[in-house]
Amino acid sequence: MRGKFVTFEGCEGSGKSTQLRLLGEYLASSGADFLMTREPGGSAIAEDIRRIILNGDYADMCPECEALLYAAARIQHLKEVVEPALAAGKLVVCDRYVDSSFAYQGYARGLGMEFVEKINSFALLKYPPDLTVFLDISPERAFERKHGADPNDRMEREGAEFHSKVYAGYRELIKIYPRICPVYCGGSKFETAENIKNLLKEKNIIK
Amino acid sequence: MRGKFVTFEGCEGSGKSTQLRLLGEYLASSGADFLMTREPGGSAIAEDIRRIILNGDYADMCPECEALLYAAARIQHLKEVVEPALAAGKLVVCDRYVDSSFAYQGYARGLGMEFVEKINSFALLKYPPDLTVFLDISPERAFERKHGADPNDRMEREGAEFHSKVYAGYRELIKIYPRICPVYCGGSKFETAENIKNLLKEKNIIK
Repeated sequence: MRGKFVTFEGCEGSGKSTQLRLLGEYLASSGADFLMTREPGGSAIAEDIRRIILNGDYADMCPECEALLYAAARIQHLKEVVEPALAAGKLVVCDRYVDSSFAYQGYARGLGMEFVEKINSFALLKYPPDLTVFLDISPERAFERKHGADPNDRMEREGAEFHSKVYAGYRELIKIYPRICPVYCGGSKFETAENIKNLLKEKNIIK
Repeated sequence: MRGKFVTFEGCEGSGKSTQLRLLGEYLASSGADFLMTREPGGSAIAEDIRRIILNGDYADMCPECEALLYAAARIQHLKEVVEPALAAGKLVVCDRYVDSSFAYQGYARGLGMEFVEKINSFALLKYPPDLTVFLDISPERAFERKHGADPNDRMEREGAEFHSKVYAGYRELIKIYPRICPVYCGGSKFETAENIKNLLKEKNIIK
């Protein structure tokens, strides 16, 4: 049987990495056949593209270029990594996916939904996630919790206004795509992990 | 007055580099205000993307990823390099442009015109070339003349069948876009240079 495809979304500092690590530990301990991967990246070519996207020296990168690089890394990762794992029946858990492009490039950078949809048509049509977990915390709260942004990361060092737009973008996406489920993550990391586990069970992703 | 935008197209080994050098020498000697640039590349970010596209180790790159990387490099180059030069009234001469994506990815790789059009809509709508010079020589003749392909270049080392498809793609594009003018280049390089110069004069690109 084909595996399920679950993606994680959230603003910078939402605790995604921590939650993915905790989920990975839980899945491993429960003997699940799964693959943890991330976007942009997850394969040699895609990781090389990621390096360009996040390079702090490339302040001049235009939004369209950025969106096309994400789409390029995405499709390579889908074909090289996600597809074989799903075909082998694995549960694939991916850190960020096409909704990041909608929220970051479509909304926050102002490129619009249509452009992002166009260049990501392959991903949207062929690989719609079975479930998207949105770690729901405002960017103000998130940066406060992680004691500020990483100045070497081109995305993190964008201003507060940008990150507020990203958050607003996600809130819009939740209205459009029923597959996106917000998870409250203002409590302790263990409470959030429990909320995520319950959601995955509820949606029949894990037993 | 806004400058003109001229692009050069052709199969591997068609003598594009030589002809662009000769044209550059002629333009410089005639005192023209011009910029010679190339795709993929022409700016720091775009050159970094070029490095990934042409990397000989990336044999697993899928056609969609390749096409999206070309589109990403293209839009960055247009905004960062081509637009300011055109706005300053310069003649911009570019080695390869969107027709390469049609011929290489759309036709030869089989992605189709529609996909290539979709991801290059910005370039096609905002920066249609005033003239596209197609160096018309079959790939068999071209590789014979340059004594084989470069094994370290991911595009050049594709087989003969691939390059024949690229050539056939260009022949189709000529029928669709009146801006694409084939220039016979089976003679000496100086004859070809003369043909190009005459074409540019005829089309009112240079005096």
